[in-house]
Amino acid sequence: MDINTVNSLPYEDFVDVFGNVVEKCPLITAAVWSRRPFGNLADLEAAISEFIDALPESGKEGILRCHPDLAGRDLRGGTLTRESREEQAGAGLDALDAAEASRVAQLNDAYKRRFGFPFVICARMNDKGRILQQLSQRCLNEAAAERTRGIEEVKKICNLRLKGLVRADPPNKL
Amino acid sequence: MDINTVNSLPYEDFVDVFGNVVEKCPLITAAVWSRRPFGNLADLEAAISEFIDALPESGKEGILRCHPDLAGRDLRGGTLTRESREEQAGAGLDALDAAEASRVAQLNDAYKRRFGFPFVICARMNDKGRILQQLSQRCLNEAAAERTRGIEEVKKICNLRLKGLVRADPPNKL
Repeated sequence: MDINTVNSLPYEDFVDVFGNVVEKCPLITAAVWSRRPFGNLADLEAAISEFIDALPESGKEGILRCHPDLAGRDLRGGTLTRESREEQAGAGLDALDAAEASRVAQLNDAYKRRFGFPFVICARMNDKGRILQQLSQRCLNEAAAERTRGIEEVKKICNLRLKGLVRADPPNKL
Repeated sequence: MDINTVNSLPYEDFVDVFGNVVEKCPLITAAVWSRRPFGNLADLEAAISEFIDALPESGKEGILRCHPDLAGRDLRGGTLTRESREEQAGAGLDALDAAEASRVAQLNDAYKRRFGFPFVICARMNDKGRILQQLSQRCLNEAAAERTRGIEEVKKICNLRLKGLVRADPPNKL
């Protein structure tokens, strides 16, 4: 799909296509439809990013709380969104051994108790070893820093999901 | 469920229970979890209402765009949320005759073309005759007035969905 096609979509189709570029937050996609036409993919991404940045801190925490745990109950129960399932599987999180699974569960719980939102990381930019290391380290952060970091990761995830849906602009011809 | 139980819920359970009090907008529920403890049901409802009011106009339009058409493709296709299905059926919208169905489809399309978001009305506070009359009248409103009106209806729907989930405070004992 190219950007002209994107700009021609009625809001219902736009939300059908892009409603999960921020996990379980179709409100955001549905809101930025008001900003069309978009010049290119980066414009659409910027509109999403600006909408997120303008939310109160509770709203940013709300976005994070719409994300599933990594290797958590939604993965085990088969209730992940398609996008999350593919991303978690790609990082090897659906094939942890017993010791790894136990360690992740313990760290996820500690993280959520400390911050009141889940650990969010762009799984496609990491493998399971790196994810475990980050989870363990980020548990020690301050809440405000970690909220900021979580939202940065949400934007990385959004960037890759968008790129999977919209063709990048062709290079300029000479 | 009473308000003490509500206040004791981890965010995941809170979102599981209340995630759809604003249709397909779990972000809002997940955000107001930050505001607990709630003194009573009205406190929780007020927190949701304040979060909505603080959104930019595009965000309010985003909320409206997360709502299905009345008697529309989601009802016909069986893809309504449980709450919407019950509310639309309760108002008789799942049993329109051919002429009524055609009239609703025509008015829904006209409304969406004019405003860029769907007609939202609290179906449980109306029957199909009144809904058709309102749809036909509200098509003529100005966009800003209709956005405000749509959000008022969102809040009525939210109020009734909340009341179905949380026990009202018992009357004061003498």
